[in-house]
Amino acid sequence: MLLNILSYAHTLLKECLEEGDVAIDATCGNGHDTLFLSKTVGTSGKVYGFDIQEQAIQKTSQKLTENGCHNVTLIQDSHEKIHTFIKEDVFGGAIFNLGYLPNSDKSIITKPRSTVSAIEAILEKLKTNGLVILVIYYGHPGGEEEKEAVLSYTSQLNQKEYQVLQYSFINQQNQAPFIIAIEKKKRS
Amino acid sequence: MLLNILSYAHTLLKECLEEGDVAIDATCGNGHDTLFLSKTVGTSGKVYGFDIQEQAIQKTSQKLTENGCHNVTLIQDSHEKIHTFIKEDVFGGAIFNLGYLPNSDKSIITKPRSTVSAIEAILEKLKTNGLVILVIYYGHPGGEEEKEAVLSYTSQLNQKEYQVLQYSFINQQNQAPFIIAIEKKKRS
Repeated sequence: MLLNILSYAHTLLKECLEEGDVAIDATCGNGHDTLFLSKTVGTSGKVYGFDIQEQAIQKTSQKLTENGCHNVTLIQDSHEKIHTFIKEDVFGGAIFNLGYLPNSDKSIITKPRSTVSAIEAILEKLKTNGLVILVIYYGHPGGEEEKEAVLSYTSQLNQKEYQVLQYSFINQQNQAPFIIAIEKKKRS
Repeated sequence: MLLNILSYAHTLLKECLEEGDVAIDATCGNGHDTLFLSKTVGTSGKVYGFDIQEQAIQKTSQKLTENGCHNVTLIQDSHEKIHTFIKEDVFGGAIFNLGYLPNSDKSIITKPRSTVSAIEAILEKLKTNGLVILVIYYGHPGGEEEKEAVLSYTSQLNQKEYQVLQYSFINQQNQAPFIIAIEKKKRS
C-alpha cells in the first residue's frame, strides 16, 4: 500500500529532520519511532524520548542498545515537562502517538490537557519548516475526547504561522487512526 | 513548505506510476499535470488528456510541444467518455483538478455527476496500487455541491478494495483546496 499512516509519518519526519537536529518522541511506546528519530538525526543529533510507563522506557532502551544508538535520552515522565528536561533552544521535529501502549494496560492513556500542553511547548521552539506529527488512535475509552481536543486546538492555530494538515482515511468502518501534522512556517 | 497540496499530488503520482504506464489527466487545464504525467510514464508510456474547453487543449498542446513530449493524446470532450477514447485495459493512475480553469470563464466548471462517473470508469481499470488523485477546489458557485458529491461517493468505496485518503489543511480561513486519493488495493 502506498497510502499508509505509519510510513507517511516517517516520510514527513525524514523530510523535515536534518543530521544534528534535536528531535522528540513524546510517547516512546515500543520504541519504534524513537529508533527511527535516532537514526535520522545521526550521531551529531540528539533525541529525547518521553513515556510515563516503565515498561515503555525499558523496551525502548533495549531497542536502542540493540541498534547501537547512543544519541537518545529517555525520560520516564510526562511529555508536559519538555522544558524541564530539554535545554536546547531549537527543535527539529517531534512525534506523538496518542492512545495507549499496545499490549499493555489500556487504562493508561494520553490525556487531552497534557497532550495539548506538550504540543504547545514544542511549537514554541520548533525550527522553520519543522514538524510536529500526531498519530491519533481514538478507538478506546477517552479517545474520542482527546481527538476532539487536539482537532479543536490544532485547527485554530494561526494560518500565518502554521500549516496544519489532516491525513485520514475516510472509507473505513472502524475508527481508523489518522495523522495531524503541524508545520511551522517561520520561526518568530 | 513541506506540506503542500500540489507537490503532494505529484509525489503520489510519482510513487504509483511506472515507465510504460497509461496515465490520465481528466482535466488538462493549463497542462501542468499533463506534462508531469507525460514525463513520468516516459516514451514507452501513454497519457490521455481530457478537457471540454478549446483554450485548455491548446495551452496544453503548446506546453507539450515546447517540452518535446510525444506520448500524449489530447481529447476535447468530457472525461465521462473515457471508455470511448481509451482502449487500453489497465490504467496506472489519474488526476482530476475539480473546479474551473484558472484565468478563464468561471461558469464553466466540472460537475458532480460527470466527475463521479469518470472516477468510476477509471477505477474499473486501475492497476493494483494505482491511484486516482482528486484536487478539489470548491470556493466557487457549484463547488460545495461537487465537493459533497465526491466525498459522499469516495467515502463509501469498499474498504476491502480501496483505500481512500483525505489530505486537507484544517486551519485555513478560506475554502482551501484539498486532495482525495483513491488507491486500488487489488485488481479484481
